[in-house]
Amino acid sequence: MAFVMIREAKEGDCGNILRLIRELAEYEKLSDQVKISEEALRADGFGETPFYHCLVAEILSAPGEPQGPCVVGYGLYYFSYSTWNGRNIYLEDIYVKPEYRGQGIGSKIIKKVAEVALDKGCSQLRLAVLDWNKRAMDLYKALGAQDLTEAEGWHCFRFEGEAMRELAGK
Amino acid sequence: MAFVMIREAKEGDCGNILRLIRELAEYEKLSDQVKISEEALRADGFGETPFYHCLVAEILSAPGEPQGPCVVGYGLYYFSYSTWNGRNIYLEDIYVKPEYRGQGIGSKIIKKVAEVALDKGCSQLRLAVLDWNKRAMDLYKALGAQDLTEAEGWHCFRFEGEAMRELAGK
Repeated sequence: MAFVMIREAKEGDCGNILRLIRELAEYEKLSDQVKISEEALRADGFGETPFYHCLVAEILSAPGEPQGPCVVGYGLYYFSYSTWNGRNIYLEDIYVKPEYRGQGIGSKIIKKVAEVALDKGCSQLRLAVLDWNKRAMDLYKALGAQDLTEAEGWHCFRFEGEAMRELAGK
Repeated sequence: MAFVMIREAKEGDCGNILRLIRELAEYEKLSDQVKISEEALRADGFGETPFYHCLVAEILSAPGEPQGPCVVGYGLYYFSYSTWNGRNIYLEDIYVKPEYRGQGIGSKIIKKVAEVALDKGCSQLRLAVLDWNKRAMDLYKALGAQDLTEAEGWHCFRFEGEAMRELAGK
């Protein structure tokens, strides 16, 4: 029998995390947008001032089973800020490999992020979901989240690439 | 004649910033959600590890004019992270007092944030807009932003309060 453990990521997990980031982007049908490297993940998450934090879901085999520990999911977050209520956490990515779904691993990751949030004095946990990803939307709603795009009409906007350089006059 | 200067906020600006935060929330018809205090803004933005950064738009009077400098707008941002392309900036709030609109002050603030983003190695500038705020949406689109809720279907989700405590099992 296998056990799942949710733990903080270590620098040595970055290779596995990058593989899962790519799987998630493929699932989201947006894999052409992934430009990040393992080196950037190492530098940005494990330097003096980390730009993000990450939890991984690891399957531990029982003694005598041939397979070693195996990372099957992750949740990557950072501290954000609301001018309405101060410190928050933003859950940028949450992903569990398809063959490990339906066992509550995603819920375990998100619950652990909520624990971190409360421990750090954050009052909100925010995330973004694609509208066709009904399974994810239903899970977050069942766990008590509110869809702010639906309820209040918030739209996500982004500047990048040439548009951002033009904006900055560079 | 008056001149406008976009500069980094100082701790002493927090009272003015809080007044503008409340004005913005009123404009967004969501002012009941503002719980933050001037003390929290001072502690979170001007401690050893700032949770946010802020620019203010200040009107400077010409010599001989009776009125002193006056803060009429602000842009509050923090560093975020994308697993697709690394370091980003998230512009949480941008606001200009109604009587100072139409002079390009909002554009000046957002351009300055884009400059900071590029200087800090960020590849994206993200923000959220209410769908009925057509004036703001049109400005961001004219400046080159993409509406990701429209283009890709992203919805903003939020856990808070009791839902978050239940999620964390506390």
